[in-house]
Amino acid sequence: MMISSTALTLSNLRPTPSPTTASLPESNSKPSSSSTSEPSSPPKPQARRFKPSPQLNRWSRARAIRSGHKLDRLIQQPSVEMNSSNSSQLVNNGYDGSELHLLSPSNESGSNGDDSTDLMAGKSIYMVSDGTGWTAEHSVNAALGQFDYCLVDRVCPVNTHLFSGIDDVERLMEIIKQAAKEGAMVVYTLADQSIAETARQACELWGVTSTDILGPITEAIASHLGVSPSGLPRWAPGRKNSLNEEYFRRIEAIEFTIKQDDGALPENLHKADIVLAGVSRTGKTPLSIYLSQKGYKVANVPIVKNIGLPRSLFEIDPEKVFALTINPVVLQTIRRARAKTLGFDDDIRSNYSEMDYVKEELEFASKTFQQNPIWPVIEVTGKAIEETAAVVLRLYHDRKNRCSMPRISKRY
Amino acid sequence: MMISSTALTLSNLRPTPSPTTASLPESNSKPSSSSTSEPSSPPKPQARRFKPSPQLNRWSRARAIRSGHKLDRLIQQPSVEMNSSNSSQLVNNGYDGSELHLLSPSNESGSNGDDSTDLMAGKSIYMVSDGTGWTAEHSVNAALGQFDYCLVDRVCPVNTHLFSGIDDVERLMEIIKQAAKEGAMVVYTLADQSIAETARQACELWGVTSTDILGPITEAIASHLGVSPSGLPRWAPGRKNSLNEEYFRRIEAIEFTIKQDDGALPENLHKADIVLAGVSRTGKTPLSIYLSQKGYKVANVPIVKNIGLPRSLFEIDPEKVFALTINPVVLQTIRRARAKTLGFDDDIRSNYSEMDYVKEELEFASKTFQQNPIWPVIEVTGKAIEETAAVVLRLYHDRKNRCSMPRISKRY
Repeated sequence: MMISSTALTLSNLRPTPSPTTASLPESNSKPSSSSTSEPSSPPKPQARRFKPSPQLNRWSRARAIRSGHKLDRLIQQPSVEMNSSNSSQLVNNGYDGSELHLLSPSNESGSNGDDSTDLMAGKSIYMVSDGTGWTAEHSVNAALGQFDYCLVDRVCPVNTHLFSGIDDVERLMEIIKQAAKEGAMVVYTLADQSIAETARQACELWGVTSTDILGPITEAIASHLGVSPSGLPRWAPGRKNSLNEEYFRRIEAIEFTIKQDDGALPENLHKADIVLAGVSRTGKTPLSIYLSQKGYKVANVPIVKNIGLPRSLFEIDPEKVFALTINPVVLQTIRRARAKTLGFDDDIRSNYSEMDYVKEELEFASKTFQQNPIWPVIEVTGKAIEETAAVVLRLYHDRKNRCSMPRISKRY
Repeated sequence: MMISSTALTLSNLRPTPSPTTASLPESNSKPSSSSTSEPSSPPKPQARRFKPSPQLNRWSRARAIRSGHKLDRLIQQPSVEMNSSNSSQLVNNGYDGSELHLLSPSNESGSNGDDSTDLMAGKSIYMVSDGTGWTAEHSVNAALGQFDYCLVDRVCPVNTHLFSGIDDVERLMEIIKQAAKEGAMVVYTLADQSIAETARQACELWGVTSTDILGPITEAIASHLGVSPSGLPRWAPGRKNSLNEEYFRRIEAIEFTIKQDDGALPENLHKADIVLAGVSRTGKTPLSIYLSQKGYKVANVPIVKNIGLPRSLFEIDPEKVFALTINPVVLQTIRRARAKTLGFDDDIRSNYSEMDYVKEELEFASKTFQQNPIWPVIEVTGKAIEETAAVVLRLYHDRKNRCSMPRISKRY
């Protein structure tokens, strides 16, 4: 299961602008020009020792500590399906703590995971985090959005590699050395400032382009609040996470949203924060789920030609309702693909996806929307789920706030 | 519906370390010392003109353009519930393009939305984006994790305000001036480098602490790839988003996961990428949904004492199955809260949440896990959903890759 982007985008049939000439921009980052094929010895980590041990065991132990002691069992009993030559190779692969350990491409491509397919063809970005790494992943993904024009069709392929839970200097150095060998760049989120500084120095020494993702914003916030950052990785043991009320609220929102999917339980529409209405394949379900993860209770109601809408939809506060619309040509394309996936036979497929029906259904939806003018009608064609969500929430909060400067506000 | 954090954390009963003395750290950010109460006139925007117009109409038009023409209707017909004094005030509020327009606190607290409650008590962080703003939100949330120790119990309250879809200098300047008035800091993600530079200069001029979230990493990636960033906001009209295959895959994963929630359709377990097993209230549903949004098909199977597990759970590839376990005291607390929410009567509640039953059920689960030693057992106590997801995916990809350096890789 390999997903190229965290953005869910509805088919975009708009014409593509020709990319401007690709040229190296003036850059504020200062990649050192030192050789990347033979990095020099690692910089001395600050008061953290290198403890040599077989590599697999080391990773495994770290994972076991993070994941609870019962994980040990997993490690003692590798799956019978495990490639034995590969695993013994790893177990026997001693690590002396000073040499750069090579992960040969064959090591990776020999696995049967989707991950490894073609991962060596392209520029690599290593994301290193002492936590989950989701912030690094999110930021890199957003930044890569600036290079769409050369990433599509793999003209200029990029592979990202996420190393999460990296909380000691030894493993950090291993990863940076590997990045140097591979010619990868490194982006990191490391809460401990001295470890972050060690990472920066090591990257500079070994000629690895690097970026500290969280450091600058953490420093700015510290200055703004007039307090120091804790220096502890997020969700580190002992960190106070008294978010119980929010936890329950978000769980409730997610569970509510699942139960209300696809027009289920129309008698509960009044309990929703947001109700989405639109014809099939306008992205109601993924949009609902995305919004629910942000803590909103969402219900979605499908509009199907010749099938009445639930009466409760017209009885609830109309300010909660958001109508989705889509270009008919794009909708037909999406429905054709869907019908194929579901293995519909031709009769059903033609009804569901053919142009006359698609247009009639959209007209039926459009009439419904006209009869309910308070519902905003949001065009989803070519929009990612994340973007439609932003539009919905902007309107939702504007309506709640009635303030002149639209914003989505939160308390911490 | 106001959620204080994007982290879903299971009740953490661990003792809290006493926070170290809060002191202003040495900061690399250089907030100007100029007065924030009377900002000087805005810096000259580069080749972008200020077009004065009534504020509400301006925002509305911008939204209408972004959201499709039908939105105009919404604007022409404001809800009958709209606070009329407030709205007329906004409509009549002419804007001459040079004065700092004051959003008075009463303007905000006068609304009936949850958003406005107490939002003026605390330090503000403005997040400004030409796109959805989710990257800024995600990064700020992660950085705020470094200040948990003073954010909990609102000792040092922080309010964030997200301004998304800000794609012209006029609105950008309005927001920065408002930030100056409010003593807020500004973090921004602006794809157009000249607009980003204008933001930086305006913040410096008006003494607003500011951080460019995406600029540094975008520059580093540009240098690494040897190509220029497009300078277009993500998902801007005309941007090529040929992510159709991924779009369908992620939609499919989300829809599959919803259908498989809570033990439904056990005959489909073999189709899942990941199967989660655990007793009620170990966070299986939100974890499944979180993973599905990353593109994995997830099924979750509840373990209930004296009720058999589906046979298919033992027939599928055991490497897909992840067992969840939790501290019994925490579980009881969560279940009590849940029983209260659901309005269970005392009989059912005692069965579901009382300690003896909780312990017996966890022991039953534990025995099942022992009989299936390949399933990793993940301790979820005190872990956020995001963190458990990181553990699951680390193991999932390790098993797929069989490589010595655990990583989660993607192609772009």
